[in-house]
Amino acid sequence: MEYECTLRVRTYECDVYGHVNNAVYLNYLEYARGEYLKSIGFPYLTAVDGGYGLYVARIAIDYKSPAFPEDELRIVTRVLKKGAVSGTLGQTIHRGSDVVVQAEVTWAFVDSKGAPTRIPKEWDLPGLKP
Amino acid sequence: MEYECTLRVRTYECDVYGHVNNAVYLNYLEYARGEYLKSIGFPYLTAVDGGYGLYVARIAIDYKSPAFPEDELRIVTRVLKKGAVSGTLGQTIHRGSDVVVQAEVTWAFVDSKGAPTRIPKEWDLPGLKP
Amino acid sequence: MEYECTLRVRTYECDVYGHVNNAVYLNYLEYARGEYLKSIGFPYLTAVDGGYGLYVARIAIDYKSPAFPEDELRIVTRVLKKGAVSGTLGQTIHRGSDVVVQAEVTWAFVDSKGAPTRIPKEWDLPGLKP
Amino acid sequence: MEYECTLRVRTYECDVYGHVNNAVYLNYLEYARGEYLKSIGFPYLTAVDGGYGLYVARIAIDYKSPAFPEDELRIVTRVLKKGAVSGTLGQTIHRGSDVVVQAEVTWAFVDSKGAPTRIPKEWDLPGLKP
Repeated sequence: MEYECTLRVRTYECDVYGHVNNAVYLNYLEYARGEYLKSIGFPYLTAVDGGYGLYVARIAIDYKSPAFPEDELRIVTRVLKKGAVSGTLGQTIHRGSDVVVQAEVTWAFVDSKGAPTRIPKEWDLPGLKP
Repeated sequence: MEYECTLRVRTYECDVYGHVNNAVYLNYLEYARGEYLKSIGFPYLTAVDGGYGLYVARIAIDYKSPAFPEDELRIVTRVLKKGAVSGTLGQTIHRGSDVVVQAEVTWAFVDSKGAPTRIPKEWDLPGLKP
Repeated sequence: MEYECTLRVRTYECDVYGHVNNAVYLNYLEYARGEYLKSIGFPYLTAVDGGYGLYVARIAIDYKSPAFPEDELRIVTRVLKKGAVSGTLGQTIHRGSDVVVQAEVTWAFVDSKGAPTRIPKEWDLPGLKP
Repeated sequence: MEYECTLRVRTYECDVYGHVNNAVYLNYLEYARGEYLKSIGFPYLTAVDGGYGLYVARIAIDYKSPAFPEDELRIVTRVLKKGAVSGTLGQTIHRGSDVVVQAEVTWAFVDSKGAPTRIPKEWDLPGLKP
């Protein structure tokens, strides 16, 4: 399963080199993970209100080709791995047929103290699995 | 009384035109207001934990001259007015003898519902007055 | 004439208070001005390539009501004034029937040295006038 | 050899969870790489003016422990590898004895078309090597 969303690059997201700043892609990927969680029905705000969270433990990101103001980007999120307390997503940002950025994001489900913890059964949804 | 702090422009704060993005100056001014509150002994975190807040109601900002990566900026914060529930600060960003930005910031003390409210006596410090 | 665009608040645009950071609204307004310029046919990139620019000289912004993650915002841009080298826009950010932010933005047309200069006739489009 | 710089977390760099947003650490690391290049005497602006650039090809970042407003952070940059056209840096962000973030950053020297190219001899400084 693949989850897609799109966005258009805004001028203020670009730096002195005229292209999207490296850090901004992490914002884009965070946005896309939020859209993915919504589309699989994961009750993120309920989890946060309950003191839980999805902690990002690691991001490995390859910058393949720069993006520019007004570019229409398509972000594809795929589940690569899923364990009892954590998982890995693959996220790719495309512009037309170009790959702009390719990333692997490892997350962990954490309790109110930030310690990794098993996802409660009712939130362990099919969409979290590959 | 004037309250001063300094900072150096970082590359990622600059936009495609090579100078500090207009919105970033509001971050700088927020930082300087935080330094001002610390220097007058205002217990900001205690107020926030108590459900109060300093809400920014209005900012009028004049962009006088652009700032560039590595520029050393000096931010001067002055109290212009102070009423029972609100006040106005003047904030100026300097680079050497140049004025980069001049701003007037109106704040209000608010309760947990965001409604303007009288500042409790123990927090109504001399440094809040002109 | 009014020019409208919309956007949805992203989580990373919100600060520790849970609402959109004051500086981020300036990004939103910049985005909306870009959309306005496109809709009136102003050749912004041609102007920039030709060494010209639209410099923002002043922004006065009133924060009326906070915005939160996922809020759908509507930004309305209106021309208030237009002179030979500068002008003033009114920009309002709405969420449903609430006003989130109200702003007045003064711009100047500048040459390659950043000095205010008369807009060349072919770019002095009807949409720049009230 | 290790290159160090320090910074203090500003409120607006923190997100709704009260800690530094994941993307902001990439800004911090970019800042620290700039300080490192200055300290080894690399003529970065001359290189950029000459049409060259240091392109970040890959970042792998491990989030070890969250950082909060006012935290004093120390960023250590080390050279791990150096080839003819590219290299790898190790960057660690510390708060006291805690590790906040650990990263590996792969860069490539590129020409005006963005193609990896051999670093001109006069810029191939000792500080670029492990």
